[in-house]
Amino acid sequence: MTQSAQQMFDRHRKTLDQAVEAISSRDFWTPYPENMKKYPEDAVKGAPSRFETLLNQPFTLKAVASTRQVGGEVSPYGFDLGITYDQPDSEALIAAMQKAMPAWRDAGAEARVGVCLEILARLNAMSPDIAQAVMHTSGQGPMMAFQAGGPHAQDRGLEAVTYAWQAMAQIPATAKWVKPQGKHDPLVLDKRYHIVPRGVSLVVACSTFPTWNTYPGLFASLATGNPVILKPHPGAILPLAMTARVAQDVLEEAGFDPCLVSLVPDSVEAPMTKTLALDPAVKLIDFTGSNAFGDWLVQNATQAQVFAEKAGINTVIIDSVDNLKAVTMNLAFSLSLYSGQMCTTSQAIYVPKSGIETAEGHLSFDDVTAALSKAIDKFLSDNDRACAVLGAIQSPATEARIDECRGLGEILLDSEPREHAQFPNARIHTPLLLKVDAEQKAAYSEERFGPISFVVATEDTRHSIDLAREVILEKGAITLGAYTTDDTVAEQFEQLAMDVAAPLSLNMDGGVFVNQSAAFSDFHATGGNPAANASLCDQAFVASRFVVVQSRRHGQPD
Amino acid sequence: MTQSAQQMFDRHRKTLDQAVEAISSRDFWTPYPENMKKYPEDAVKGAPSRFETLLNQPFTLKAVASTRQVGGEVSPYGFDLGITYDQPDSEALIAAMQKAMPAWRDAGAEARVGVCLEILARLNAMSPDIAQAVMHTSGQGPMMAFQAGGPHAQDRGLEAVTYAWQAMAQIPATAKWVKPQGKHDPLVLDKRYHIVPRGVSLVVACSTFPTWNTYPGLFASLATGNPVILKPHPGAILPLAMTARVAQDVLEEAGFDPCLVSLVPDSVEAPMTKTLALDPAVKLIDFTGSNAFGDWLVQNATQAQVFAEKAGINTVIIDSVDNLKAVTMNLAFSLSLYSGQMCTTSQAIYVPKSGIETAEGHLSFDDVTAALSKAIDKFLSDNDRACAVLGAIQSPATEARIDECRGLGEILLDSEPREHAQFPNARIHTPLLLKVDAEQKAAYSEERFGPISFVVATEDTRHSIDLAREVILEKGAITLGAYTTDDTVAEQFEQLAMDVAAPLSLNMDGGVFVNQSAAFSDFHATGGNPAANASLCDQAFVASRFVVVQSRRHGQPD
Repeated sequence: MTQSAQQMFDRHRKTLDQAVEAISSRDFWTPYPENMKKYPEDAVKGAPSRFETLLNQPFTLKAVASTRQVGGEVSPYGFDLGITYDQPDSEALIAAMQKAMPAWRDAGAEARVGVCLEILARLNAMSPDIAQAVMHTSGQGPMMAFQAGGPHAQDRGLEAVTYAWQAMAQIPATAKWVKPQGKHDPLVLDKRYHIVPRGVSLVVACSTFPTWNTYPGLFASLATGNPVILKPHPGAILPLAMTARVAQDVLEEAGFDPCLVSLVPDSVEAPMTKTLALDPAVKLIDFTGSNAFGDWLVQNATQAQVFAEKAGINTVIIDSVDNLKAVTMNLAFSLSLYSGQMCTTSQAIYVPKSGIETAEGHLSFDDVTAALSKAIDKFLSDNDRACAVLGAIQSPATEARIDECRGLGEILLDSEPREHAQFPNARIHTPLLLKVDAEQKAAYSEERFGPISFVVATEDTRHSIDLAREVILEKGAITLGAYTTDDTVAEQFEQLAMDVAAPLSLNMDGGVFVNQSAAFSDFHATGGNPAANASLCDQAFVASRFVVVQSRRHGQPD
Repeated sequence: MTQSAQQMFDRHRKTLDQAVEAISSRDFWTPYPENMKKYPEDAVKGAPSRFETLLNQPFTLKAVASTRQVGGEVSPYGFDLGITYDQPDSEALIAAMQKAMPAWRDAGAEARVGVCLEILARLNAMSPDIAQAVMHTSGQGPMMAFQAGGPHAQDRGLEAVTYAWQAMAQIPATAKWVKPQGKHDPLVLDKRYHIVPRGVSLVVACSTFPTWNTYPGLFASLATGNPVILKPHPGAILPLAMTARVAQDVLEEAGFDPCLVSLVPDSVEAPMTKTLALDPAVKLIDFTGSNAFGDWLVQNATQAQVFAEKAGINTVIIDSVDNLKAVTMNLAFSLSLYSGQMCTTSQAIYVPKSGIETAEGHLSFDDVTAALSKAIDKFLSDNDRACAVLGAIQSPATEARIDECRGLGEILLDSEPREHAQFPNARIHTPLLLKVDAEQKAAYSEERFGPISFVVATEDTRHSIDLAREVILEKGAITLGAYTTDDTVAEQFEQLAMDVAAPLSLNMDGGVFVNQSAAFSDFHATGGNPAANASLCDQAFVASRFVVVQSRRHGQPD
């Protein structure tokens, strides 16, 4: 049975209202549980076998005429997916999207938001399936693939819809403008205001977080009226193909052209992104990936507004701690989680070479590095837990980088391969931890994507702060962690965070980690340093995705 | 006596609250009366003589070391201003601004908004003086120079402050994040959120509306924490120098570095804009001017967010009218006002060659053009009124363009020079109205800045709409006027407006004109077609001028 977009909106209205409240209060909130046990047992247990039925055959979507088939995904856990996808003709697709756009625009904000919320609800219900697709493309461990690929990604999508709704709701549909004219009759104009989309929106996804980093742009653009092309990374197509299928189903059920959300997969050999990005019809681009390509987009796709999440030198500064063991356990988890392949993983850890003060007295620099190495080592001593937390290395290039970086400093803890009980061919490697001097800036101030981190020996905390400022202003950072027991130093960290526009996590020594960011409360990246030019999500992320077109005509006073 | 920024905020709080309400309801509202009689008689009467005391001498501002003197303004009313200005060393200025920025940032939104509102209040009080400066740089007639240069410009500035305030107020200063953990204690984080400016803001002004087009960018950037460089057009420096002086006085009184608003005047021979625009510290650019330079900025100053108001082919489509006389009187005023030098003046007027229906029956194409020519001719028959409405032609290039365009079509009404009673050397010219066929697209689809308009003979209204769509999609438009007595056609115009993202003024036949746009109610330009990439003002105009930097640390539940 088909349902109207209005019914969808009405059904999800309460969720939307709660989300509006959440982005204002910024307390913890989510409609999508991260606890797998809250999902039907059958859905969870049957996911691996449902995943297997997708392998080694075409995955079809509603699309305009396709020109070729692409595929070639390889699970980082060590097997070919063997799935093929249609690659639609991009010119025909863009023409079809432009034709479909006015009806989507004229449907209004409630209808569009209703469709988006229904898509998200259905994606939530299939989180176990999405998790399989995310795990076997990104290499994430099962728990992370479920949480970050499923509910947390849906949170970020809902957050984007919420900001879009709030921005659109600020524009009244009509107004009566009555200008007094002294003794004469007033001038009266009846005005109408329309939300008008920018044009075709291109969302360029990455291989490590194919849904989490993609849903914000997808839903922000779609809710504000723009057709969306999903351009997956050639190594992680399936999660977005599944997403596009859900979106197309919901759009069609609500009476809209399903091409409004379309997948354009490509291959490493014949990439499509530059062609799509430079198309004059493409007015919005969301990108997650390398600095080089993000900067290329900003400099070349000047017909479009580009929202780019790139990379930076994520930083931790240790000044002093209460409990070094708690701190190093926290950092050990941060550095191990998904083998450092998060855009939020710390790379440079600044520690004074004279050591630090703790509640148990002064500890030397070597004490600190030894404690950190030991904490990682111990945390990963159980191989099953290690494999679950580390996940697999997404690309051979990242695997190779571990070797390439071994010579960049003194090895505090060497990276070692691990064997997965279920997937013996999985690319699994523990973190490499290096010691460098502050002067070895070339080593630690280039992004070394993967499980590679540096403990940087500095003169003192002032020096650490100065180095961090210099490096982040030049290279950017998505996260900044810092540890101190001194309120004055804490205030210096707060100032540093503002000066370099990086969010500060202070004294994380428990169950929250610098590389985690919660929708509705944490702004992921700020957009204010070279690591990203946009934040997930804030008003700026949605406000320029639509324009307001008004009309006015003479009217009568009320 | 110095006053704190907080006192300023408290004093103007009621105005701010009313402004917030106005941008939501979009009814008529202003705190700055456009009626000159509402200002003290002495202030109005003494303005011309106070203006004369400024002539032929240096105009000084608080500035870092200046490298040279510039000047050379010539009144379009026929005399040299003879004023010289310091041109600060731009590198030293930018360094000083970056040094001053943290204190301005840390003062918080209330302090910054308080300072902005106080600047606006003082600018309002000196509207008669600003009017003199605007008149004798832009060439605007006295009434327009007062209204558009004074209160209407202040309205747009206040509107920008209001949007900035609203955007900043959505971000809470703090939050407590409490995440349930089942049977365990919840995770609790105390969070802080800081508004952090983007960096140095460059506002590049035009010669025709030196204040109206500049105040939105100036106040949007300043309120959100960014230091502002005002880069006036070499022909219209004085209005911005006066503005900068007021801003510097208020900043200094509130305890801030006056360099936070600085003037960098230049000359035609040694322009500074490209150098400033490409400075890596410049993160925001507001520009009003030519398409060529606006496009250059977007393509080259990729380190900055560029808000560009350029030019387009403003359009009127006549399908049918009730009262042709009322319509042509309305259009006569529109085309005459400031000699077509508004970015909102209509250039292409599409009329079916078979004529139009009116309440008095069918009228031929020639009847329509004759009525329009006659209306303009009659409206300008009183020379004093003509000179007051037409104002003077700002630049010799615009004057020359009238001659250059005479051959582009059949002359329906020729342009003629007029002599001003008080200023015999003023450059005053009446509108040139040309008739062209639809095929002569090269004539009417290039912007012809100045008092030059075309009546375009089309097959029918459908043809008019198609041509308008084609031309505006390619060249943009800031205004779209249309006339019809048929509701179906009116709906087609509404669709056209959305398709080309141009605001529609329907059936203007009274005291409101297509080229007028009211702050707090009308969105000036949409940002959605090639004539402008931003609107004055909407959320998108302010949202990307700041980022949010947060910090988080473990806390206790309430």
